[in-house]
Amino acid sequence: MAKINESYKKLEAGYLFPEIGRRVRGFTEANPGADVIRLGIGDVTLPLAPAVVEALHAAVDEMATESGFHGYGPENGYGFLTDAIRQVDYKARGVDIDGEEIFVSDGSKQDSGNIQEIFGQGCSIAVTDPVYPVYVDTNVMAGRTGNADADGRYEGILYLPATEENGFTPAPPGERADIAYLCSPNNPTGAVASRENLGAWVAWARENDAVILFDAAYDAFIQDPDLPRSIYEIEGARECAIEMRSFSKRAGFTGVRCAYTVVPRELTGTTASGERVGLNELWGRRHATKFNSVPYVIQRAAAAALSDEGLAQTGEQVSYYMENARRIREGLAAAGFTVFAGEHAPYIWMRTPGGLSSWDFFDQLLDKARVVGTPGSGFGPSGEGYFRISAFNSHANVDEAIERIGKVFAG
Amino acid sequence: MAKINESYKKLEAGYLFPEIGRRVRGFTEANPGADVIRLGIGDVTLPLAPAVVEALHAAVDEMATESGFHGYGPENGYGFLTDAIRQVDYKARGVDIDGEEIFVSDGSKQDSGNIQEIFGQGCSIAVTDPVYPVYVDTNVMAGRTGNADADGRYEGILYLPATEENGFTPAPPGERADIAYLCSPNNPTGAVASRENLGAWVAWARENDAVILFDAAYDAFIQDPDLPRSIYEIEGARECAIEMRSFSKRAGFTGVRCAYTVVPRELTGTTASGERVGLNELWGRRHATKFNSVPYVIQRAAAAALSDEGLAQTGEQVSYYMENARRIREGLAAAGFTVFAGEHAPYIWMRTPGGLSSWDFFDQLLDKARVVGTPGSGFGPSGEGYFRISAFNSHANVDEAIERIGKVFAG
Repeated sequence: MAKINESYKKLEAGYLFPEIGRRVRGFTEANPGADVIRLGIGDVTLPLAPAVVEALHAAVDEMATESGFHGYGPENGYGFLTDAIRQVDYKARGVDIDGEEIFVSDGSKQDSGNIQEIFGQGCSIAVTDPVYPVYVDTNVMAGRTGNADADGRYEGILYLPATEENGFTPAPPGERADIAYLCSPNNPTGAVASRENLGAWVAWARENDAVILFDAAYDAFIQDPDLPRSIYEIEGARECAIEMRSFSKRAGFTGVRCAYTVVPRELTGTTASGERVGLNELWGRRHATKFNSVPYVIQRAAAAALSDEGLAQTGEQVSYYMENARRIREGLAAAGFTVFAGEHAPYIWMRTPGGLSSWDFFDQLLDKARVVGTPGSGFGPSGEGYFRISAFNSHANVDEAIERIGKVFAG
Repeated sequence: MAKINESYKKLEAGYLFPEIGRRVRGFTEANPGADVIRLGIGDVTLPLAPAVVEALHAAVDEMATESGFHGYGPENGYGFLTDAIRQVDYKARGVDIDGEEIFVSDGSKQDSGNIQEIFGQGCSIAVTDPVYPVYVDTNVMAGRTGNADADGRYEGILYLPATEENGFTPAPPGERADIAYLCSPNNPTGAVASRENLGAWVAWARENDAVILFDAAYDAFIQDPDLPRSIYEIEGARECAIEMRSFSKRAGFTGVRCAYTVVPRELTGTTASGERVGLNELWGRRHATKFNSVPYVIQRAAAAALSDEGLAQTGEQVSYYMENARRIREGLAAAGFTVFAGEHAPYIWMRTPGGLSSWDFFDQLLDKARVVGTPGSGFGPSGEGYFRISAFNSHANVDEAIERIGKVFAG
């Protein structure tokens, strides 16, 4: 009999966002015509920038000709894209990244889910809590954990609570771990790591010979130029960190699909016998065996998003969403809610009112205000009693949502 | 110290196609201007069909508008695409597949590499030999094998030799295995499985409670309408088979990226305690956690390839490549080579001349005829002494390649 991977049975009920989708579908089917405003999943709403659209059309036209047709692409991405990434995302901030250290992919969800494959089964994992569920779930599926306890904490994972006290930016733990997942600006809390905080993490990783998996999918939302956008702005990070970045939020690519992962050449793991093995080579082998490059037209679109014109246009989109973040933050605060973050991230993190559980608040918000958010507890036990509001929507919908929430829950 | 996944160290030198790429680059750098004809990697060469191009442009225009913009797509693919798949690929051949049994993805390489994740670590694996390297390598990476022996056979994998005697279509083994990978039309041998052969495999799988992973990426090249294109044309296959299909070869999508996997609801695996678990649900959980849907514009393109117009246009492309296959088959036979297949597949399988090893023939072919093919031994030990020629190129290049090969090796 073909045995299944029983680690899947340890997973909590379902991946968070499909569960939200199911509840929202249930509500809209029971309330046809209900005017639901979605501030749940962090999904962009503005149309693609003109420079991106133009590049897509041009690439499609190329693919329609014998001379311009492109079949299988280079495994790690076309040079025109990796060159643009090196220049715009790194060189411009004083960081040197080699083209062969960049692996273009179809999403940071995929990369942050797949990266654990190159590590040993026995590696210990640390995550901040609440956390993007993919980091935890993929380690559960890989068999690196025991069962979840009543609060949803998996045995064998080190949870570092992100709390009001630490500004939702945990310091490195006193104990060691082999791998630590960090995300800044953070999903879900919207908190952003300072240079000092990241410096402490890099020092911790180097001291413990640990690897930091740094998810910078939201870096474009950082408003303060002095805050680090890349972990490689921190001295010594090349020896201890892998970085993942995405075009999804910065350029409206959630339905276009392009991202990349940087694995510096200096970064190594060890075999049981202590031999050092380059992680760049291991990830390259994984990428070449289980992936087959991003569509040519999409890579052209991503490169266009990094052109001067594309940067200006997508920058305006980011500003539009950050204006939403401001309205949500200030509007909810004015209505008496306790809100956090949203200054360098498209997410506002809030305390649920009246001590409601995260899912109870979700259900009430949907039922009474017809607004969809994301329950903090869906991101981990320390998210219980908190709630995430996304800034991805129109100004009008955001204003309407804040007004509704205020009316239903105020006082 | 972060330990690496040491199973990667068991892998043979490198994934086959990057290795070919390296040798070809080495040759062209040493011989600048050399007119190399590539019949190696199975990569399409004709431009995208007009219906596909039109759909891409239309979808890009949609993405440029507020009302037509699409962010994250449904996890398993848009209904417009899964409906077209159900109708064109299945219903038209008398097979009923439900929309929720179809998982749209960015490639059959990915799907056939990732599918092993939902199975237990201890599952025994059977492959035909030679075989598409991804099936084997991904099980090695997952730790299901021991080391490779001198011939490249991994300990713990059951290799079923595809030989001249069995028409390169092995029958099921006398012993049992938990999982068997089949590919028809076959990559690399170009052989196609008969209804009887697949019937025997389905009977074997049902008797042994095994799961068949059926790769039908090349089904569009089958010329005889009586040959099975889907394993679900075989009675009882819904209880024992997962099927993978791709738009890469049938519609020229190698640089466009769209494929899908079918996991019937009836299909189950078991836990250690004997509980039955639906594989559809498990694959759905994997897909939702580690994947994030195919770009909207690409799904529109795939649906267009399944329209009447798209089918007619891509059908002409397939005919064009099959004319190449005929020229290669007949041309090499006339030049005295022993050739096989190429009648229902874009691949010709040939014996190397003069008892040359597969890689020696590769190097000589490149050096003397400036033609790139694929060494049979790169696909497994039973491929030693054989060679794969791909039909993906222009008529003119194919004619020129055959003439060169004939000149260099004839007699």
